[in-house]
Amino acid sequence: MKIGVLGTEMVAKAIAGKLSELGHSVKLGTRDVQATLARSKGDMAGGPPVRTWLESHPQVTLGTMAEAARHGQLVVNALSGQGALAGLELAGEAALAGKILIDITNPLDFSKGMPPSLTVSNTDSLGEQIQRKFPETKVVKTLNTTNAHLMVDPGKLAGGDHTMFVAGNDAAAKAEVTGILQTFGWRDIVDLGDITMARGTEMWLPLWVRLYGTLRTPMFNLKIVR
Amino acid sequence: MKIGVLGTEMVAKAIAGKLSELGHSVKLGTRDVQATLARSKGDMAGGPPVRTWLESHPQVTLGTMAEAARHGQLVVNALSGQGALAGLELAGEAALAGKILIDITNPLDFSKGMPPSLTVSNTDSLGEQIQRKFPETKVVKTLNTTNAHLMVDPGKLAGGDHTMFVAGNDAAAKAEVTGILQTFGWRDIVDLGDITMARGTEMWLPLWVRLYGTLRTPMFNLKIVR
Repeated sequence: MKIGVLGTEMVAKAIAGKLSELGHSVKLGTRDVQATLARSKGDMAGGPPVRTWLESHPQVTLGTMAEAARHGQLVVNALSGQGALAGLELAGEAALAGKILIDITNPLDFSKGMPPSLTVSNTDSLGEQIQRKFPETKVVKTLNTTNAHLMVDPGKLAGGDHTMFVAGNDAAAKAEVTGILQTFGWRDIVDLGDITMARGTEMWLPLWVRLYGTLRTPMFNLKIVR
Repeated sequence: MKIGVLGTEMVAKAIAGKLSELGHSVKLGTRDVQATLARSKGDMAGGPPVRTWLESHPQVTLGTMAEAARHGQLVVNALSGQGALAGLELAGEAALAGKILIDITNPLDFSKGMPPSLTVSNTDSLGEQIQRKFPETKVVKTLNTTNAHLMVDPGKLAGGDHTMFVAGNDAAAKAEVTGILQTFGWRDIVDLGDITMARGTEMWLPLWVRLYGTLRTPMFNLKIVR
């Protein structure tokens, strides 16, 4: 499938690399292609600069937000929480209309220091904000509850015996996304219901961040034991 | 140990019953003893009225909030989220001073319909509000992440192979509470840090509530797989 992945940071590269490895045609989207290619600094997680990463993933191409969105039959929002709405605006309503948008973002606000708070919570969520802004797009919130390495390779932890969530208004879109998650190795995928449940998974992040500090590794996840 | 348990609803009865079974001297606290004893209706979860419950738990006594707080060397806040601060005020600052207060409450707001939202979240929590209001009390947030039946008998689910959290400012208080949790059967107890992490566990509730709807049983919990 042709997939556009918006973003060039850790999560975007992890998702794009995995989707490409699985045989999908992937285009990364960025605000300014030349500036992104000129960057010599790696990402926050110690990953390589985008140019170096693209050299080691020759099947993946880089374009503008709009080009990546137009390329994709399905689009992945792997932007930062605070850049998500502006980035999606650059991608364009028309290019996203009728398509599934996998939304991985978390509305983390680092501006007041660590640990981050949320820019939206409780009675609204970033997933809902995106769905309201792009009513013709089928937003499916998922993958935002784990580290990027685990998102695309859950088997790295406990043989994959832990849980992923999906939430969204369109049942067929959730079924298609669930199928993609299964190709990543996810076995326990819980459908929480409509996009309002983005609230629940985004509000898990403050606990995730503190557990990251306590456990001193991002290689953990929750399992819903039942 | 002498323990005061504030509240007479499902959580209070479950905790009081378990503590009594373990040999502790337990006094339940309520706003109006006569009114509580006169109630013929059971609790929200189908449990018996308090009078009937007390007959089957003859070791447990009932008193006012202040009497229960004075009785306890350790006090448990098992009130509703919206009644917690007022109930603790009735218990009294002096009766709570210097003691450990196990805070199980969640700031659920049912006033706008289902699913409930939170009365406080993100940059503050009910646990912190209580700690600020009673600075001489050692508030330990715990047990608020599971159903009352599992709180006191984690072995009922997956042989107890799931996770409980503690958060609070006083290390010795957390160690003592951890010991009590172990007598309940908890084996995986994660110390999240100070009382600000009540935010993380209280913000887990919206996800818990939706999972309850999805799984159609409250007999589930999260396990931190690492």
